[in-house]
Amino acid sequence: MSDTCTEATLSEFDRDTAVRLREPGVHDVHLSAGWAIGHALNGGYLLAVAGRALGETLPHPDPFTITAHYFSASTPGPAVVRSETARTGRTLSSGSAGLFQAGPDGREVERIRVLATYGDLDTVTDDVRTSARPPAMPPREQCFSAHDNPAGPEAGPEMGKRLDLRLDPATCGWAVGAPSGRGEMRAWFGLADGRDADPLSLLMAVDALPPTAFELGLSGWVPTVELTAHVRARPAPGPLRVSVITANLAGGFLEEDVEIWDSADRLVAQSRQLARAKA
Amino acid sequence: MSDTCTEATLSEFDRDTAVRLREPGVHDVHLSAGWAIGHALNGGYLLAVAGRALGETLPHPDPFTITAHYFSASTPGPAVVRSETARTGRTLSSGSAGLFQAGPDGREVERIRVLATYGDLDTVTDDVRTSARPPAMPPREQCFSAHDNPAGPEAGPEMGKRLDLRLDPATCGWAVGAPSGRGEMRAWFGLADGRDADPLSLLMAVDALPPTAFELGLSGWVPTVELTAHVRARPAPGPLRVSVITANLAGGFLEEDVEIWDSADRLVAQSRQLARAKA
Repeated sequence: MSDTCTEATLSEFDRDTAVRLREPGVHDVHLSAGWAIGHALNGGYLLAVAGRALGETLPHPDPFTITAHYFSASTPGPAVVRSETARTGRTLSSGSAGLFQAGPDGREVERIRVLATYGDLDTVTDDVRTSARPPAMPPREQCFSAHDNPAGPEAGPEMGKRLDLRLDPATCGWAVGAPSGRGEMRAWFGLADGRDADPLSLLMAVDALPPTAFELGLSGWVPTVELTAHVRARPAPGPLRVSVITANLAGGFLEEDVEIWDSADRLVAQSRQLARAKA
Repeated sequence: MSDTCTEATLSEFDRDTAVRLREPGVHDVHLSAGWAIGHALNGGYLLAVAGRALGETLPHPDPFTITAHYFSASTPGPAVVRSETARTGRTLSSGSAGLFQAGPDGREVERIRVLATYGDLDTVTDDVRTSARPPAMPPREQCFSAHDNPAGPEAGPEMGKRLDLRLDPATCGWAVGAPSGRGEMRAWFGLADGRDADPLSLLMAVDALPPTAFELGLSGWVPTVELTAHVRARPAPGPLRVSVITANLAGGFLEEDVEIWDSADRLVAQSRQLARAKA
């Protein structure tokens, strides 16, 4: 669906998040079943799709801060993203977008709504003053991949086949019926076809690990209510480290706080989502 | 401007965030100079104003998760909030709002845009499983209030007169020219007129402390680009404790992570904002 690449040269992620301009502010997209977790499409994938369309509408290329609210489960197939510019400035521009699909009666249903501010990561300074530290994790080769799944590498969610995810064994107790009780999940992260990370793929990566709720001993569905991601730097090539922490499960809701670190030991994205913990 | 209370019985916060329905989805408001920091109105105050108007439009009363993007500085005087419902569900409803003021040429300028999901905090369960701990702080009487300002209690920003803010001395080095170098700010928090906290006032409280950038040794303006707040429980009466942490200042942007704890030792709100650090 891209104008500049043939499908053969596109990564799975770029192919499946490609948007086609129908008219100003309106982009058509084909949501791919390749990013499903069970029957629903992954919220990070949907955020990347909406973020790509909004980025084509706004004058700046990179999402600096983007929030999505999730209204109903998206399904594989056609969708449309309607974007609106709210303000344009010299260094930042902002706008909203809605991702819609046809409902059972044929009328458009809004699946997610997004509000975001974009800038250009190439124009920010290199100055970094940080007290944040990368997550302590074993090397990749000591972490668990889909190939270590006792049920076989094909047993996991469809989205897992798009990823090169290596879970820290310390946060994998849930997979063998022994959750740690700590709301933590850590992994080395890449795309299965080797595509390097960029700001858009980070929007997917912030929602790509198994729910921390699994390590808290909950096994149900944990639908995202809202997710906000900040992209803080353009990621260097190479594997990412993703850390997710849940501190507070209260009243049936929990937060997931995510940090993503690149191979140059820089904090390239932070996100927080509010999710419902269903029993 | 309220239909149910005379001004004499209203708290300063309720009076200054009152909204008057003009027509469905359109609320008039008078922004008060009482919530200014320098020449601009405080971002938390504006979030509370927009949040009140959006809450009157949506069928659920309490902001569970609300995001605002700040486009230009609001000024005291008339403003209008235009709200739109995106989806209504049994337990949650979502919508957008824009806060507008007349620009120099008389045309409406959008100051902030909000995207939020509301629910009813009275319907959530009491179950809490948390590893979060309240901030370690000295008792209120050992903290610094505006009355301890060497320049006099009237010397601080106008908004300070609306608040009963008691800053942890460990995070007050900036006030005497000796910033700690740590991106931390902590305070006991209340309203000066004794009004107890509620979900709406929490939206203001998440942006009410001095910038953590002051303790990092920066003295310039730190305008908010985006702020997301999660209200996790209805606060108990009594003073709140507010903790703000900045870990990562990079490329001229920094995050402020906020926790608010109530007198019953519950984490009642979490927020994160992305702000620009201007030299």
